[in-house]
Amino acid sequence: MADNADQIQQRFGKNVRRIRHAAGLSQEELALRSGLDRSFVGQVERGERNISLTNIYRLATALKIEPSVLLERSPK
Amino acid sequence: MADNADQIQQRFGKNVRRIRHAAGLSQEELALRSGLDRSFVGQVERGERNISLTNIYRLATALKIEPSVLLERSPK
Repeated sequence: MADNADQIQQRFGKNVRRIRHAAGLSQEELALRSGLDRSFVGQVERGERNISLTNIYRLATALKIEPSVLLERSPK
Repeated sequence: MADNADQIQQRFGKNVRRIRHAAGLSQEELALRSGLDRSFVGQVERGERNISLTNIYRLATALKIEPSVLLERSPK
């Protein structure tokens, strides 16, 4: 695995955005549901945040998916 | 999902410890391989740390597993 921190954060952010779109949610709706700031959600989706474990769970719960899905390498 | 932060951190820590044992590594060896502090690894395994995304990847790389495995709910 030759991942660097930027790649990891960007992959995570893309997963969040893809699943949020599939759920038909806006960034603001996801922020409200997860109890996170809308600007924070935007930064996460752009790969600019090194998000913590508990916030990964908040997003996953709001998206109604297992947290591990947000870390997957090759989304189908 | 009715997880709270403590449960999440503890589940993550148990996954790390279980997989580290299965790999035959000491906490110190895992710390060396992942570039993290041994005391930090111990705190993570005890569920005392809200670990960040990039450190989740460091541990997973050192354990030669996919990062998502460390977040799984019901290890077999």
